[in-house]
Amino acid sequence: MPQFSLADLESIIESRAGADAAASYTKSLLEAGVPRMGKKLGEEAVETIIAALSGDRASLIGEAADLVFHLLVLLKSRSVAFDDVLAELAKRTAMSGHEEKARRKS
Amino acid sequence: MPQFSLADLESIIESRAGADAAASYTKSLLEAGVPRMGKKLGEEAVETIIAALSGDRASLIGEAADLVFHLLVLLKSRSVAFDDVLAELAKRTAMSGHEEKARRKS
Amino acid sequence: MPQFSLADLESIIESRAGADAAASYTKSLLEAGVPRMGKKLGEEAVETIIAALSGDRASLIGEAADLVFHLLVLLKSRSVAFDDVLAELAKRTAMSGHEEKARRKS
Amino acid sequence: MPQFSLADLESIIESRAGADAAASYTKSLLEAGVPRMGKKLGEEAVETIIAALSGDRASLIGEAADLVFHLLVLLKSRSVAFDDVLAELAKRTAMSGHEEKARRKS
Repeated sequence: MPQFSLADLESIIESRAGADAAASYTKSLLEAGVPRMGKKLGEEAVETIIAALSGDRASLIGEAADLVFHLLVLLKSRSVAFDDVLAELAKRTAMSGHEEKARRKS
Repeated sequence: MPQFSLADLESIIESRAGADAAASYTKSLLEAGVPRMGKKLGEEAVETIIAALSGDRASLIGEAADLVFHLLVLLKSRSVAFDDVLAELAKRTAMSGHEEKARRKS
Repeated sequence: MPQFSLADLESIIESRAGADAAASYTKSLLEAGVPRMGKKLGEEAVETIIAALSGDRASLIGEAADLVFHLLVLLKSRSVAFDDVLAELAKRTAMSGHEEKARRKS
Repeated sequence: MPQFSLADLESIIESRAGADAAASYTKSLLEAGVPRMGKKLGEEAVETIIAALSGDRASLIGEAADLVFHLLVLLKSRSVAFDDVLAELAKRTAMSGHEEKARRKS
């Protein structure tokens, strides 16, 4: 069976975006607006940091999953496809280490 | 040509982990330790939130790319493969909307 | 009547630290531990940023109050008095603008 | 000598707001705008969390000082006096523990 991918997650978010808000957490997030989604992204980032510092692998995996999920919902709300993010990552990583460093520092 | 994927990004991070810290931003991050990587993740999450609120698509794509990059570096530092995060996302999204909501709320 | 001060808030947190956790949000936070308090601080910081960007003064005041409250609870949990933070601020602001800039950049 | 207070810090920020941006970090922050100040607040909150988790008191005091400083600059940029935040804190802490809990949860 092909492995679950972020494209699959994106499709699920897409399909839940059309669901009843009472039945779908994803839909209710999208309806709550960008400030609410931004707040959730911030919370999950902080929980990911805390989990990484704690050294608890299972908790880090769970929080990273929450962070990725909420990032994809936020991107969806702004009509940004994850492919656009991947294209940006491809562009950046095509640079050499030195160029990369200079770019990120600027 | 196959599309750039997070698995590709993970390989690049892996290969740069073995590079000279002076030549690679990735390597220097990994050597700086989890608190430093956690701090960068937090910064990129805040910048992603600000970009989403501003409504500037290009800036949102750039900040989301930075967030994903720093998340993968943090996971690498804790020996967590992104596949583990995908498996967790697959498990969660296999649940129905109602179950999903109950789980995330708990 | 003298104005309410952060020293007053600190005393209230101190007195609630000895209360029944069921009756006091402050006490239940202190009992939940540093990761939980850190998470709350992160949430309130994100909400403060979102409120500042939104331009809604009342909401900014409310979120800043929440941020200060959770900061004082976190400091209490680590036995840091707010006076220690004030002393650090006094030391830094005693520096000239140029020195200040150099210090903060380093 | 009277102790250094947040009112003193507020006055210093006020006076530096009128300084030359090249000479004052405070002034350059205020000129950079709310997104830049929000970003700095987010960074300092994350550093405060990391310092609290690390258990290093001196580092927690330093990061809390940075957080308070950047909060006051952000408030200044939105013309919010710290007294407004204190008044909000006074109102909330006048409530009983039970009321407090109910309020914060809502």
